[in-house]
Amino acid sequence: MAQFMNRKEDIVTEAIDGVVASSGGALARLDGYPHIRVVVRNDWDKSKVALVSGGGSGHEPAHAGFVGAGMLTAAICGEVFASPSVDAVLAGILAVTGPSGCLLIVKNYTGDRLNFGLAAERARAFGLNVEMVVVDDDIALPSLPQARGVAGTLFVHKIAGALAESGADLESVARAAKKVISGIKSIGMSLDTCTVPGSPKEDRIPDGMAELGLGIHGEAGVEQVEFHGARQAIDAVAAKLGPAINGKTCVALLNNLGGASVLEMSVLLYELTSSSIGKSISHMIGPAAMMTSLDMRGFSVSLYPADAEEIALLQAPTPLGAWPGLSQISTVTVVAVPDGLKPISPMPSEHAETRAFLTGCCNVLIAAEADLNALDAKSGDGDTGSTLSGAACALIDAMDRLPLADHTQLFRAIGLELSQTMGGSSGVLLAIFFAATGDGASSGLPMREALTSGLARMQEIGGANVGDRTMIDALAPALDALEQGLPQAAAAARRGADHTATIVQAKAGRASYLSAKQLEGHVDPGAEAVARLFEHLAG
Amino acid sequence: MAQFMNRKEDIVTEAIDGVVASSGGALARLDGYPHIRVVVRNDWDKSKVALVSGGGSGHEPAHAGFVGAGMLTAAICGEVFASPSVDAVLAGILAVTGPSGCLLIVKNYTGDRLNFGLAAERARAFGLNVEMVVVDDDIALPSLPQARGVAGTLFVHKIAGALAESGADLESVARAAKKVISGIKSIGMSLDTCTVPGSPKEDRIPDGMAELGLGIHGEAGVEQVEFHGARQAIDAVAAKLGPAINGKTCVALLNNLGGASVLEMSVLLYELTSSSIGKSISHMIGPAAMMTSLDMRGFSVSLYPADAEEIALLQAPTPLGAWPGLSQISTVTVVAVPDGLKPISPMPSEHAETRAFLTGCCNVLIAAEADLNALDAKSGDGDTGSTLSGAACALIDAMDRLPLADHTQLFRAIGLELSQTMGGSSGVLLAIFFAATGDGASSGLPMREALTSGLARMQEIGGANVGDRTMIDALAPALDALEQGLPQAAAAARRGADHTATIVQAKAGRASYLSAKQLEGHVDPGAEAVARLFEHLAG
Repeated sequence: MAQFMNRKEDIVTEAIDGVVASSGGALARLDGYPHIRVVVRNDWDKSKVALVSGGGSGHEPAHAGFVGAGMLTAAICGEVFASPSVDAVLAGILAVTGPSGCLLIVKNYTGDRLNFGLAAERARAFGLNVEMVVVDDDIALPSLPQARGVAGTLFVHKIAGALAESGADLESVARAAKKVISGIKSIGMSLDTCTVPGSPKEDRIPDGMAELGLGIHGEAGVEQVEFHGARQAIDAVAAKLGPAINGKTCVALLNNLGGASVLEMSVLLYELTSSSIGKSISHMIGPAAMMTSLDMRGFSVSLYPADAEEIALLQAPTPLGAWPGLSQISTVTVVAVPDGLKPISPMPSEHAETRAFLTGCCNVLIAAEADLNALDAKSGDGDTGSTLSGAACALIDAMDRLPLADHTQLFRAIGLELSQTMGGSSGVLLAIFFAATGDGASSGLPMREALTSGLARMQEIGGANVGDRTMIDALAPALDALEQGLPQAAAAARRGADHTATIVQAKAGRASYLSAKQLEGHVDPGAEAVARLFEHLAG
Repeated sequence: MAQFMNRKEDIVTEAIDGVVASSGGALARLDGYPHIRVVVRNDWDKSKVALVSGGGSGHEPAHAGFVGAGMLTAAICGEVFASPSVDAVLAGILAVTGPSGCLLIVKNYTGDRLNFGLAAERARAFGLNVEMVVVDDDIALPSLPQARGVAGTLFVHKIAGALAESGADLESVARAAKKVISGIKSIGMSLDTCTVPGSPKEDRIPDGMAELGLGIHGEAGVEQVEFHGARQAIDAVAAKLGPAINGKTCVALLNNLGGASVLEMSVLLYELTSSSIGKSISHMIGPAAMMTSLDMRGFSVSLYPADAEEIALLQAPTPLGAWPGLSQISTVTVVAVPDGLKPISPMPSEHAETRAFLTGCCNVLIAAEADLNALDAKSGDGDTGSTLSGAACALIDAMDRLPLADHTQLFRAIGLELSQTMGGSSGVLLAIFFAATGDGASSGLPMREALTSGLARMQEIGGANVGDRTMIDALAPALDALEQGLPQAAAAARRGADHTATIVQAKAGRASYLSAKQLEGHVDPGAEAVARLFEHLAG
């Protein structure tokens, strides 16, 4: 059972109870489980036209998810893919129908037509004013006189729902529903069948194929077609829908049949707006899972040439989270990339002492390449020495471009150079260290405090602390000791670096994947590099 | 390629263009495809604190789906499961940050921390006020010092977003975000891995097992556990979350990881509210796909002990369809089934002539059983005779209960009896015919018109017309001819019934599945029954 369910017999009632429990009190259900599974508005005073829909379950959020202000008044839920009983439909009608009457919105399946139809008769015997409309929007089987009702039903729910909510009478609501039904055209495509609870999955779609014109109850598609990606899938659907809408400007409803990812649905949305029928689409509902076929990896597109009044009804607010809203399709606004993305190089300036200082530091790292690589081979991938040496060479090469005479700008410039020449996490972290140090220096901090603020920022971003077996184990004590002088800082850095050989559980970086035995006795190469730098500076 | 996508390289940019095109102009994107994939609010005047989030793609609708009023100001989208570049993040920050500054909301992954962190440094060098918070809500790996950021990130987006929208300053927004981060606890469970575009699916979860504590980038779960259904799945998750929230009253966020059906998510919602931590859950966000892992058939639960002010911020309106809203959890209101579901039996009354009339009709059908079965065997499943004969016998048995002296009530009563004793579509359709005829009679129509209105309703519900090879082919002409007298009606019924033998394409009922060759020369059994009834009545 590779589905999140319990007993097959309980799936619909448990799902309904979940929906009702989280409705914030807006919904209730009728008594009579398991035969009567009816979700009703809990805030309903019967003063307006009631809208009742439903049918087999397995199409969630349809229909219980669309019960609420501005859409349905009640949803009658059958077993998965099975029509609800006449009694269940009648119970729903009786529960919500007042003097303004009731409109039944039924998808065109024999069982639903009959059971809703007979329930309507029984309700009329009670003197209730009940009308019924049958949605038949599927264009997959043009020769079939009884087209199926699929996701286009949502247009009826929303337009009739908003009209009923506005206080329109039953005749107007039913007339509007019939007009909508006469204009909706839908078709779906799927890469996989759905998994009916308690049944093995039917494996009828071969690899590389898709079904076009499928039903929402696992019915096979009208044709199996080769599948060559999202563009061709939308092209196939558009080729069917295009003639059906005949150039009319339409609202499109892009429905996830249950198992397509949100990313895929967005790609399909893009292709739909770019397709041969894209120019006919003025507004979009979705993409969203509205009328699903359980977990089917597929989608459907429904088109309706809504007039201005109907668009307003589609836009009318409803508190229902399952209704994705209507949005206008527009060309994609592309905003220019802001200035400053290519960092402005600081004005180069000469400063002999600084040049010598930097070059010296770089040479320390270049000289240490082999040693640091050897250390890194014990705990990482053996390239720390090469990485630092390469960055040092690049910095020497860049010396003429650096603002050597402006020490606050110099830190930022070094950070920038490192971020461009040094790969991997350590390049970014050192860039952050130098940039933040530059920030500190430019805001007037003394050098040691500026360096300390750089260290703090690097720790914040990198997430490593003293004791985590990183360069910080040498750098932090060195900066602490710098107040006493460079020799003290160098001694502290060396102690810190040597201590890393005893840290057998790394918490950050690549060494965190290694065991204690693999790490013990080996100094961290980053800490060693820091120690050598300070030892060089202490002379 | 069993996914709705085109080239792997284009999936993110195409998805973004889809989202932006259908935003109704609310969104724009930055120039710079494919390296810079940044979605920004198109109505943004930089007067308030900007909220920038993002990371690898594959988590849709996060993050582009949450860009809009009251949530994010910009989303920086990397490749699927790969951090965006520093340049992309910086471009996003520069595009939306004004004097009020910017908060970066980053999920705790090394790449995101580093790239967002360095971009923040570069933005600060332009004098911009940029803060960064790191979300680490995953409790799957309690020993890991760097907990991952997963779906709980949505709490930060919404609470910080609503606060920023209200005009709060950067310090307040960052403080609120940090408070939220310190309190969120999340964990997920999955029955399947995700399908990374362009890669084969990793098949590491055996049948009957689930992964608990998985990551949102296909990282394996912390443990594989046996899977025994939705209740046990939620129990396993609740067992981890319970100690983490320690009895505090929480808002729960129930996230679809991408491939679970809406029906399954509702069952999980039910189980969550019924679970050991159910009593601690005051409000619910979802179920909805918010922070997905492509098409993973899994879910995650995030809990946050929101205070009253935070609940108000979570409830603050936002136009974003991807945000499912916050709803209060309440006990399920169960409304009593309305009176009248068990139909009130009409007062029985005696009327010798009517009794004889009805009994005679019933006997005709009983006598015709074998003939009608034989006819039905040619075009259906061979039981029309038995069905009608059984219904006739039941009607005879029910005679003492019928209001024989009240003809308008009688039709409804017959309809009720038929709907209870006669199976299949034909039982329901005849019940509708008699009930609607009764409606017509009780509203004062003469008998022929009442019968005609019954026929019309039956046709409306059943969808069959004259010429569709059903009982209507005899009934309709008979009722038309009834004005001239019963003999004329009987003759018309016979002509109509005989004509059905020439109708080789049935459009309704079971015969519609048969070929012309199979049908030719065989009278429809329903039409034959009607003809025999009228011939009996004509004497």
